[in-house]
Amino acid sequence: MGESSDTISEPAAAATTHVELDGGEDEQDPESNSLHQPLLKRSPTLSASHLAMVGAKVSHIESLDYEINESYLFKHDWRRRSNVQVLQYVFGKWTLAFLVGLLTGVIASLINLAIENIAGIKMLHVGKYVREERYITGFVYLTGLNFVLTTVAAALCVVFAPTAAGPGIPEIKAYLNGVDTPNMFGVSTLIVKIIGSIGAVSAGLDLGKEGPLVHIGACLANLLSQGGSENYHLKWRWLRYFKNDRDRRDLITCGASSGVCAAFRSPVGGVLFSLEEVATWWRSALLWRTFFSTAVVVVVLRGFMEFCNSGKCGLFGRGGLILFDVSNVTVTYHINDLLPVAAVGVIGGLLGSLYNHLLHKVLRLYNMINEKGRLAKLALSLSVCLFTSICLYFLPFLAPCTPCDPSIQEACPTTGRSGNFKQFNCPSGHYNDLASLLHATNDDAVRNIFSTSTPTEFRVVSLLIFFVLYCILGLITFGIAVPSGLFLPIILMGSAYGRLLGVALGSYTNIDQGLYAVLGAAALMSGSMRMTVSLCVIFLELTNNLLLLPITMFVLLIAKTVGDAFNLSIYEIILELKGLPFLEANPEPWMRNITVGELAAAKPCLVSLQVVEKVSRVVDVLRSTSHNGFPVVDEGVPSPTRTNAAVTEVHGLVLRSHIIAVLKKKWFLKEKRRTEEWEVRDKFTSVDLAEKGARIEELEITDEEMEMYIDLHPFTNTTPYTVVETMSVAKAMVLFRQVGLRHLLIVPKYQGAGITPIVGILTRQDLRAHNILNAFPHLANKRDEKRTTSS
Amino acid sequence: MGESSDTISEPAAAATTHVELDGGEDEQDPESNSLHQPLLKRSPTLSASHLAMVGAKVSHIESLDYEINESYLFKHDWRRRSNVQVLQYVFGKWTLAFLVGLLTGVIASLINLAIENIAGIKMLHVGKYVREERYITGFVYLTGLNFVLTTVAAALCVVFAPTAAGPGIPEIKAYLNGVDTPNMFGVSTLIVKIIGSIGAVSAGLDLGKEGPLVHIGACLANLLSQGGSENYHLKWRWLRYFKNDRDRRDLITCGASSGVCAAFRSPVGGVLFSLEEVATWWRSALLWRTFFSTAVVVVVLRGFMEFCNSGKCGLFGRGGLILFDVSNVTVTYHINDLLPVAAVGVIGGLLGSLYNHLLHKVLRLYNMINEKGRLAKLALSLSVCLFTSICLYFLPFLAPCTPCDPSIQEACPTTGRSGNFKQFNCPSGHYNDLASLLHATNDDAVRNIFSTSTPTEFRVVSLLIFFVLYCILGLITFGIAVPSGLFLPIILMGSAYGRLLGVALGSYTNIDQGLYAVLGAAALMSGSMRMTVSLCVIFLELTNNLLLLPITMFVLLIAKTVGDAFNLSIYEIILELKGLPFLEANPEPWMRNITVGELAAAKPCLVSLQVVEKVSRVVDVLRSTSHNGFPVVDEGVPSPTRTNAAVTEVHGLVLRSHIIAVLKKKWFLKEKRRTEEWEVRDKFTSVDLAEKGARIEELEITDEEMEMYIDLHPFTNTTPYTVVETMSVAKAMVLFRQVGLRHLLIVPKYQGAGITPIVGILTRQDLRAHNILNAFPHLANKRDEKRTTSS
Repeated sequence: MGESSDTISEPAAAATTHVELDGGEDEQDPESNSLHQPLLKRSPTLSASHLAMVGAKVSHIESLDYEINESYLFKHDWRRRSNVQVLQYVFGKWTLAFLVGLLTGVIASLINLAIENIAGIKMLHVGKYVREERYITGFVYLTGLNFVLTTVAAALCVVFAPTAAGPGIPEIKAYLNGVDTPNMFGVSTLIVKIIGSIGAVSAGLDLGKEGPLVHIGACLANLLSQGGSENYHLKWRWLRYFKNDRDRRDLITCGASSGVCAAFRSPVGGVLFSLEEVATWWRSALLWRTFFSTAVVVVVLRGFMEFCNSGKCGLFGRGGLILFDVSNVTVTYHINDLLPVAAVGVIGGLLGSLYNHLLHKVLRLYNMINEKGRLAKLALSLSVCLFTSICLYFLPFLAPCTPCDPSIQEACPTTGRSGNFKQFNCPSGHYNDLASLLHATNDDAVRNIFSTSTPTEFRVVSLLIFFVLYCILGLITFGIAVPSGLFLPIILMGSAYGRLLGVALGSYTNIDQGLYAVLGAAALMSGSMRMTVSLCVIFLELTNNLLLLPITMFVLLIAKTVGDAFNLSIYEIILELKGLPFLEANPEPWMRNITVGELAAAKPCLVSLQVVEKVSRVVDVLRSTSHNGFPVVDEGVPSPTRTNAAVTEVHGLVLRSHIIAVLKKKWFLKEKRRTEEWEVRDKFTSVDLAEKGARIEELEITDEEMEMYIDLHPFTNTTPYTVVETMSVAKAMVLFRQVGLRHLLIVPKYQGAGITPIVGILTRQDLRAHNILNAFPHLANKRDEKRTTSS
Repeated sequence: MGESSDTISEPAAAATTHVELDGGEDEQDPESNSLHQPLLKRSPTLSASHLAMVGAKVSHIESLDYEINESYLFKHDWRRRSNVQVLQYVFGKWTLAFLVGLLTGVIASLINLAIENIAGIKMLHVGKYVREERYITGFVYLTGLNFVLTTVAAALCVVFAPTAAGPGIPEIKAYLNGVDTPNMFGVSTLIVKIIGSIGAVSAGLDLGKEGPLVHIGACLANLLSQGGSENYHLKWRWLRYFKNDRDRRDLITCGASSGVCAAFRSPVGGVLFSLEEVATWWRSALLWRTFFSTAVVVVVLRGFMEFCNSGKCGLFGRGGLILFDVSNVTVTYHINDLLPVAAVGVIGGLLGSLYNHLLHKVLRLYNMINEKGRLAKLALSLSVCLFTSICLYFLPFLAPCTPCDPSIQEACPTTGRSGNFKQFNCPSGHYNDLASLLHATNDDAVRNIFSTSTPTEFRVVSLLIFFVLYCILGLITFGIAVPSGLFLPIILMGSAYGRLLGVALGSYTNIDQGLYAVLGAAALMSGSMRMTVSLCVIFLELTNNLLLLPITMFVLLIAKTVGDAFNLSIYEIILELKGLPFLEANPEPWMRNITVGELAAAKPCLVSLQVVEKVSRVVDVLRSTSHNGFPVVDEGVPSPTRTNAAVTEVHGLVLRSHIIAVLKKKWFLKEKRRTEEWEVRDKFTSVDLAEKGARIEELEITDEEMEMYIDLHPFTNTTPYTVVETMSVAKAMVLFRQVGLRHLLIVPKYQGAGITPIVGILTRQDLRAHNILNAFPHLANKRDEKRTTSS
C-alpha cells in the first residue's frame, strides 16, 4: 500500500488469565489477576457465556502486525523521511528482491550439484558391485552410505534446528497469514536445511528438495530483510527501513516464489504458487516484484547449466533441473481420450485425499515418537533409511531381465549413473526395468517413468511394485526429522499409477504412456495439495509443451474437485496438526449467528490503560497479563460539545512491545501530565520501537520509579480498526483477514453517558473456529445443519 | 467469502446539496435542502474547511455494494435457505462459469469465422484486380467495401449502443472496482459489439477483436448472472440467488478472463490478465473458477479449429487464432544478446509512454468532435476508414518487387488471401514485401512480420513505412465510434520496430528477426499497458516456446519500469478521461496528513433517520438529497447500564433502494412503534430488495399516508463498517478498498453524553484524490514535496 511504517510484532496474542472483570458482579479470582480495578466494563447488554473461554487454546506463536500504526512517533518518523530516503527505500526493495532471487538460484544450483555428484558416485559404485556379482558388498556400501548421509541430515536437524525438518511450506503459509513461528527463518535453519536436504536426498530417501528450496528462499528473504541475523551480530544499517512486518512479508513472498522457481525451473509457476497456495494478502505490485525475483533465479539457473554443459560439474549432467521435456513430442488426443483422462483425474483425487488421510494418521503417530527425545527422532529417521535402502537394493532382483528393443534410439542397456535402461544384474543386451526406476536418484526415476515413445519399457508388475513401494515410503518418510519436500514423493506415486493406467488401457487410447505418467503425477498433486493454476503452469513449464495445457487443466480440476469432497489439503492438515492459528479465507457459515459482542463477553478480561498512567500500574498490568495490545483511554475529559458533562476519550491502542521500550529507556515523568510531542520525538527511533522479544521480567524498576508516570500518548496507535458489537463474527473475520489485523477493537452501539467506550478486543485466536466452538458449543450443532456455501 | 447475501446498488453516491447543518451556526441554505432539523450534529472539535465541498465532482455513475448486509431481512433470507438451495447455488455458480466459457468460446469462433471470410473475399478480389492491372477498380472495390463495413459498425454503435465503442476493458476494470457504468453490459451492447467488431476488423481498420472479446465475455457473464435482460423480459427464476453485486462481480471476472483467453487462446494468460489488470478484489476460489471458464473456452476453440481443419469454414484456414507459433524454432541466445534485448525494452517503454501521451491528446480532441452529435461521430469514423483504405491500397506500390529466395521452403509468391510473400503487382517469381504486410488482415500481418528464418524478407524502408503508418493509424483509429481493441494496434507497431531493430543490428546478434518482432511487440504492450506477468504468459502461450520466457520477462520488466517513469498506463488514462471514480490501490502519501474527520467536516450534510420515522420526513429526505445511504439512530433509549441517562443507539445504515422498496409496497404503520420481525419477514423477498433503479419521484403517496410511520429496523444493515474520526484518509482508504465498501461511517473518538454518535459518512467519491484536493488545496503543495513510495 505504499506505506513503510515500521510495525512490530511480539509474543502471543491470546489471554491466559481467567478473570471476570464484571464490575457489578463479585466473581473475581484474585489468584490469576491482581487488577481489581477494571477501567472498562463489559456491556451488560450482551449475553455472556461462562461455559468456556475463547482463546483458551493458547499458542505460544507470535502474531504479526501488518496494520499501519498511526501513533505520533511513527507519523513523525514517516514525515521526517527525506526524498533521498524514500528513494533509498524503493531502491532497497528491488535490490533485496534481486538478492533473494540471486542467492536462491545459486544455492539451488549448489544443492543440485552436490546431490547429483554424491548420489551419482554412490550409484556408480553400487552398479559396479552388482555387475561384478558382489551383491553383499554392494548392499553394505549402499546402506552404509545412506546411513551416513541420513545421520548427518537428521543429526543436524535434531541438534541445531528442529524447525528445519519437513518442507517448511505450511509455516511459510502461516507466516504470510500473520503467524510467526519461532526460529523458523533463522541462519541455523537455513544452513541445516541446505546441508540436510543434500544429505537426505542423496541418501535416496523418498523425499524431494523442492519443499526445502521454498523454505530456503523464504529464509534468505527473512535474513536479508532484517539485515542479517541478530544472534550473529550481522547487521546492516541501511536496511533499517525494512525492519517491519509488512516489508518482510512481501520479501518472504518473493523468497517462496524464488524457491518454487528454483525447484522446478518454473518462473511463472513460482509466482502463481505463492499467489494461490502460500500468500494470504496479495497486491499487483507484489506480482511484479516476485516475478522479478523468479526471473533472476531463472537467469542464474540457466547460467549454471550452461557452465555445467561444458563438463565442469562432475557427474552433474543434463539432469537435476528439468524433470521432463516433451517439447519435441507431438501430442494428439481426441474426444474419446477424455474418458481415460477423466479417470486419471478421479483416481488422482481419490488417492490424493486417501494419502492426506493416511499421512495425517502417520504424522500423529510420529509426533508421539518424536516427543520422546532426540534419540527417538534419530532412530526413527535411521529406521526409515534402512527400510528404504533394503527395498531399493533388493526389489530389482525380483524383476526378470528384458531384452533391449533395438528400434529404440536410446542407449540400452546403460551402466552409468543415469540412463533409462539399466543393465543392473542382467546380461548385456538386456536391462532390468525395475532397476531403471529404483537404482536412480528420484529425479532420474521421474524422468525415466515420464519417458515417451517407450511403450514396452516397463512391465506391469514392475510398475505395480514401484507404485506400492512408493506409497509406503511416501507415508513413512515425510514425518522424519530431515528436510523433506512433498512434491517429489507425490510425483513418484502419481506417475506410477498414471503409467500403470496407460499400460492397462493399451491400444484403447492414443495418448502416450509417458503422458499418462505426467497426468497421473499432476492429478495426484492436485488431489493432495489442491492447487490448480499454479500446478498447471508448473507442469506446463516442466514439460515445455503447450499442447498438454488443456488436458492438464481438465485433470487438475477433476482431481481437486474429487479431493475437496473428502478432506482438506495436505498443507492445511499439517497446519492444523502443528496447531498454528491460521486464519481461513472463508468464515464458517455458523459464524453469522454469533456477534463479536457475544464473543467479547465470553472472553473474561479486558484491561485498559490511562493515557498518563502510573509506572507501577503499567508494570503490574504487563506482569499479570499476557496481552499484547491495550486500549488507551482518557476518562473525564471536558466534552467537546461545550456541555458540562465530562466524557471519555478513546485514545487508541498501545502495543506491549512499545510500553516495554518505554520502560527500558526509563522515560518517566515526575508529575502526571501529557508531554509535548517535541519532548519525545528524538528519544525513540524507529529502530528502538522495532525491537522485538524484550520481556517485562527482564526489566528492573526501582520503587522510586514505580511512583512516577508514563505518558503513553506518543506511542499509542490512535486509529485502531473498530467494529460495532452487533457485527457478526463472519463479517468481522472478513475485515480482520482482508486488512491483515492483529487487534480489532469492539465499540458499543450506544452513545451516551455511562457507556463503556470499548466493549472488547479481538485477536486472531478469538476468531478461530475451534476456539469459538469451545466457548459456544451450541453453535457446533448448527454447524452440521448448514454446510458451507463457500467458494 | 462464501456468502450470498443479495446486496443492491443504485444511483450515484455523492452529495449534491450544499447545506450546512451545523446546528449552532446559521448558514443554512433553504434553497437546496428543506431539512431544517439536523438529527446529527457534526463534531465541532473538527476543523471544518468551507473552501470547497468534497464530492463536488458528482458522477452519475452507480456505485456497487459488495458489503455483507446484516439487516434482519437479509439474515432471515439467508437462514431460511435449505441445504438444497445452497447446493443449487453452488451448482449454479459453476454452471454459470461453464456457460460463460462456452458462449464466449462459441462467439469468438463465429467472429473469427466471419472476419476471416469477409476480409478474405475482399483481399482475394483486390489481389485479382491488381494482378489484372485494374488499379482503379481495385481501389474503388476496397474502399467501397471498407466504407460499407465501417458504416455498419459505426452506425450500430452510434444509434443503438454508444457504450459498445472502444475496448470496454477500462469499464470492466471500473466495474470490478465497484463502479457501475450505465448500459455497459446489456444485450444491445453485446449484439452491437459482436457485429460492430466483425465489421470494423473486416474493414481493415487498425484495431483488434481482442478488447471487444473481453467485453463480450463480461457482457455474457452479466446477462447470465441476472438471468437475462430485464428490458426484454427474459428472466429465469432459478438465478435469483445471483442477483447481487458480489456474485455478479465474480462472474464478470470469469467473463473477462474468458474473453482474453478466446482472443489469444491463452487460458492461463486470461486468468492472469484478470488478476493483474482488471480485478480489484481477488480470492483463491475465484482463481479456480476463472481457470475453469478459460479451460472451457480453450476446449471450444480447439473443437472449432479441428472442425475447420476439414475445410468446412470457407476461407478460415490456419489463421485467426494463433498469431505466432515458434514452438519448432530453437532459440539460442547468450549473454551478449542481453544488450540489444535491453534496448528493445527501453525503446518499448519510451514509445509506449509516448503513445499513451499522444493518444490521450487525440482522445480529448475526439471527445470534442464526438460531442457534436451522431453525424459527427459517423463522419469521424468514415474519415478514418477512408484514410486507412487509401494508405493500405496505395503504399505497397511504392515498394519495389523483390525476387523470391529459392532457398525458402514457403510458397513464393502467393496470390491467395493469406501467405507471407504476396505477389501483388509484381511479376511471377517476385513478391512485394510491403503488400505482404498491408494487403492482409491484421492477424496475417502480425504473423508475417513475426515469421522466423526469413532474414531478407522485409527491406528496411518497407518496415519503416509500415511502422510510421501504423503509428499514425494507431493514434487516430482508437477513439472512433466502433468496437476497437488496443492489443493489436500495439502489437503491430511493436513488432515493426522490433523487427527494424533486428534488421539494423544485422549480424551483431544471434537472435532471429522474427523474435525481435515478438520482443518488440511485448515491450510496447508492456510500455503502454504496464502489465508484466499476464503479458508474459500470453506471449508464452502465443509463441508456444518456453525458451523465450526468460528473455520476454527481461524485456517486459524493463519496458514497464521505463514506462512507469513517465505516465500512467493506457487503461488508467482512459479511466481518468472517462471520469470514472476508480479507487486506486495505493493511497497518495499526502493522504496520511488528513483525517477522515476533517474530510467529513468539509462535507456539508449528513442526514440521518430515526428507526421509526414519519413517512413525510422519509419522503422529504429522499426527495431533497441524493444520498444512497442514511444512518439510522434511535435517540433517547434507556441506557443499558441501568443508569437513568438516556442514550443514543446507532442502529446502522439503511440504503435508499430499500426505503424506496418500503414506500413502493406502502408498508406503513398507523402508530409510532417498532414492529416485530414476523410482521415483516414475509412481506419482502430478496428479489424485492434486489430491485434497482426505482426513483422516489415515481412514487405517489397520499397525504394520509404521509402522516403514517415507517419502521426501518428490519431493513437496516446493523453492522456497517466504521472508523474513528482520527484515522488518516490513507488508512481509511485501504480499508474501503480492501473490504469493498460503498459507505463507511465515521464515529467520534469520544464516548459520553452529548456526543454525536455518527460524525460523518464516507463514500467512494470522498476518497478520490481529486475531490480531496479540491476541498483541501493546501495538501496539493505537500503532494509535490513527497512523491509516492508506493511499490
